[in-house]
Amino acid sequence: MANEYNALEERFRQMARLQHAMTFLQWDQLVMMPPGGNDTRAKSIAELSGMHHELLSAPEIGELIAHCSAQEQDQEIQASLAEMAREHRLATAIPSDLVKAQSLAGSKCEHGWREQRGNNDWQGFLNNFEHVINLSRQEAAARMEASANSFHSPYDALLDLYCTGDSSALISTVFDQLKVELPPLIHKIMEKQNGREIDLSPPFAISDQEQLNRELMALLGFDFQRGRMDVSMHPFSTGDTGDHRITTRFREDDFIEALLATAHETGHASYEMGLPQRWEGLPVGRSRNMSIHESQSLLFEKQLILSKPYLEFFTRTIHHILKQTQPFSANEIWNLATRVRPNLIRVEADEATYPLHVILRFEIESSLINGHMEGADIPDAWNQKMQQYLGLSTDGNYRDGCLQDIHWTDGSFGYFPSYTLGALNAAQLFHAFRQNHADWRERFRIGDISFLRQWLTENVWSKGSFLSSQEIMEQATGHRTEASFFLNHLHERYLEE
Amino acid sequence: MANEYNALEERFRQMARLQHAMTFLQWDQLVMMPPGGNDTRAKSIAELSGMHHELLSAPEIGELIAHCSAQEQDQEIQASLAEMAREHRLATAIPSDLVKAQSLAGSKCEHGWREQRGNNDWQGFLNNFEHVINLSRQEAAARMEASANSFHSPYDALLDLYCTGDSSALISTVFDQLKVELPPLIHKIMEKQNGREIDLSPPFAISDQEQLNRELMALLGFDFQRGRMDVSMHPFSTGDTGDHRITTRFREDDFIEALLATAHETGHASYEMGLPQRWEGLPVGRSRNMSIHESQSLLFEKQLILSKPYLEFFTRTIHHILKQTQPFSANEIWNLATRVRPNLIRVEADEATYPLHVILRFEIESSLINGHMEGADIPDAWNQKMQQYLGLSTDGNYRDGCLQDIHWTDGSFGYFPSYTLGALNAAQLFHAFRQNHADWRERFRIGDISFLRQWLTENVWSKGSFLSSQEIMEQATGHRTEASFFLNHLHERYLEE
Repeated sequence: MANEYNALEERFRQMARLQHAMTFLQWDQLVMMPPGGNDTRAKSIAELSGMHHELLSAPEIGELIAHCSAQEQDQEIQASLAEMAREHRLATAIPSDLVKAQSLAGSKCEHGWREQRGNNDWQGFLNNFEHVINLSRQEAAARMEASANSFHSPYDALLDLYCTGDSSALISTVFDQLKVELPPLIHKIMEKQNGREIDLSPPFAISDQEQLNRELMALLGFDFQRGRMDVSMHPFSTGDTGDHRITTRFREDDFIEALLATAHETGHASYEMGLPQRWEGLPVGRSRNMSIHESQSLLFEKQLILSKPYLEFFTRTIHHILKQTQPFSANEIWNLATRVRPNLIRVEADEATYPLHVILRFEIESSLINGHMEGADIPDAWNQKMQQYLGLSTDGNYRDGCLQDIHWTDGSFGYFPSYTLGALNAAQLFHAFRQNHADWRERFRIGDISFLRQWLTENVWSKGSFLSSQEIMEQATGHRTEASFFLNHLHERYLEE
Repeated sequence: MANEYNALEERFRQMARLQHAMTFLQWDQLVMMPPGGNDTRAKSIAELSGMHHELLSAPEIGELIAHCSAQEQDQEIQASLAEMAREHRLATAIPSDLVKAQSLAGSKCEHGWREQRGNNDWQGFLNNFEHVINLSRQEAAARMEASANSFHSPYDALLDLYCTGDSSALISTVFDQLKVELPPLIHKIMEKQNGREIDLSPPFAISDQEQLNRELMALLGFDFQRGRMDVSMHPFSTGDTGDHRITTRFREDDFIEALLATAHETGHASYEMGLPQRWEGLPVGRSRNMSIHESQSLLFEKQLILSKPYLEFFTRTIHHILKQTQPFSANEIWNLATRVRPNLIRVEADEATYPLHVILRFEIESSLINGHMEGADIPDAWNQKMQQYLGLSTDGNYRDGCLQDIHWTDGSFGYFPSYTLGALNAAQLFHAFRQNHADWRERFRIGDISFLRQWLTENVWSKGSFLSSQEIMEQATGHRTEASFFLNHLHERYLEE
């Protein structure tokens, strides 16, 4: 028995060694590779990906897992087997013809979108996109069937890929509350912020900003013996426990955006670097899902470094490294970083309006996949919801409306909710952490955040995928994901401070 | 028939896609990776290497090659098949038990050497090294057998791995001439250089040097759309035709060393980037051997940029980028870069004494592998030859004698001769190039080297492995590798200019 389970572990560790190769070849592609390498790199990654798929979907893997699962007594190993079974099921659920058709349709739709967005060409986009929707509906049906109909709806079968364990029922409940409470709250915040204008007198030299961001990472506990920071077009984080890499980007006229991006990616990286070593390379040793992942990045970005005690501490470092002789105060930085204003574009949204962008997308994509809406209905639904939630019109403006995101172009339905679940989880986790540490303000004010890392290690990072996302939340905070902690956070930050 | 050959091509291109992954994971390991990534990276590369070996050594590959070779009419495809057969034979020649034993013994010996060298501990080293020698003798015997005894000696079977096609008979002939003519020539050069002392008044800012070296690469024709330059402990070059990467290193007190290293690696890279595209990923499309490879790097380093016309041109760039207000002359730089002085350490040797270091190693390693000498005999042989060739003693000084190189520790016997064959080939190729371009001085003086790149493309780079190394030399220069062109080069450069 132990030997059979060990054989399974070795098979999954072999896949992890291929995954390692793909991870760092992709990092290199985005951060280091000259344009001439594109073609060969794409072929090399596709080769490895094919080999990985072949290993993961092999029938004998399924048989070995079933055989071990039926006999295993050890709880940790049972959890490990369950996650192996899940990965094997995900890899075998869709017929390879459908995978290929999706890959082709997705590439075509994404490629077209890059021009169509600029041209505000909804009809051109829709011609490709309808095919993507159709294939995603087939995918959802296949995934429902493969899971013996354990999902409540086809959309839930896609949600499971990103927000694993967070059902559309749970999401609807918290999103419905946000939908009601956020608009009046945003109105009050804007009234309070009215007339607030600050200028930080740029430029800020890129080389100084680079040093400043490295310093922030070090202060946040990033171990440069086990990772790197580089520059790329879009900030991201990737890697292994022993070698995790983040990227950020700099603008001379603003240093705050880069700091927030760096803190965000440091949160993602800290989670990955804190995963349980014993289980590295195995499914159960991986991060839980995107809702938990995003909670760690947003906890670092929105809760930790924008808490007033920590920002007061860090502002001295900003003054020093950016060589500011007539320095702005921590409060001025805070005011700039917490400006609330409804905007058509999701990626430019502040933390108060962001959830409404996500709710709009959640409502549309779940209707699409569940067959209650067609692609052609999207622009009207988008415009109507934007008016209702944020008081803005996208009538005829597809570019800044339903054509703004890349996610749907290749059929990544079910990803958007993780952004807002992450924000709710972050507020909820940070609240629980503070309940446990009455002296958090004093310690943050002198830059000590080791006890926060310790708390996150114990409650989130070390859990890997041994618990479901909602079990993590319940054990750490006493509650499943709720809207109230996030709403309280906004109330305190924007109306009371 | 065509279909069977095409199937073979696809198999080899699949191996090339794995090789691509290994190449860039290794580059990352040496240039970018934080220490924490070491363990996982080593395992990932070993996994890919194992998969690659399995594909290459598969019996059906051998059968397919034999089948196609028996029927194929097309000359290019025949050459392609011959190189495929060679790679397959190399991969299957040694039993896997011996490969494993060599890998273990090599790691142990190399690991021990890193301490033993510093401690001058010959006896400790010898304990491990005798095992390495023994296994390399077994390897040589196995390779002789696999090639149906087409090699003249066991040592030739190892030489074939690096100096493919350059036999020990050819090497002995040219080395014997060098051995006689170099010592008196070196003596004359030193007399002529006596009393020459120059100081270039450092420091030279690293950031300026970085810009200067990039500028040199661009002037030498390096295409930054298809490659990069970075910094690493030891300069090297690696990559594909479409993405080739070199590294260099900088010291504040000297800018010449980095420029020479950059030119050297740019020569290696130019060869790789100039290989025939149609055959990329196939054995016949690869660089010929290490003797030809080193000829390209040394042609750029020693012949091209140290030619007086080119150095005169480039000195203006040096003045400008290094912001020199009281500038040194091209002649002063040239004097510093061409200083000849016997030295115990090979990697610090100048171009006149370097061949004697290599000849000493060639004589010892060929005797070792052919069974005419034992490991215990090395220190005496080393000391005796150093006295004879360079007038220096290594009696009791193993650290700066037979313990100085890493090459033998893992059994890389047969590599050393490529350094000097490369230097001879470089002088011989550059001579032929000048015979064909009477106006080379005038064009170099204005920085135009495009016609040199063109000549190398036609005569070396585009040949891939379609010709043997000696066929390349004969077609390009009218002669097989000879010592005379190199000796004439030294004579002209050091005694006449």
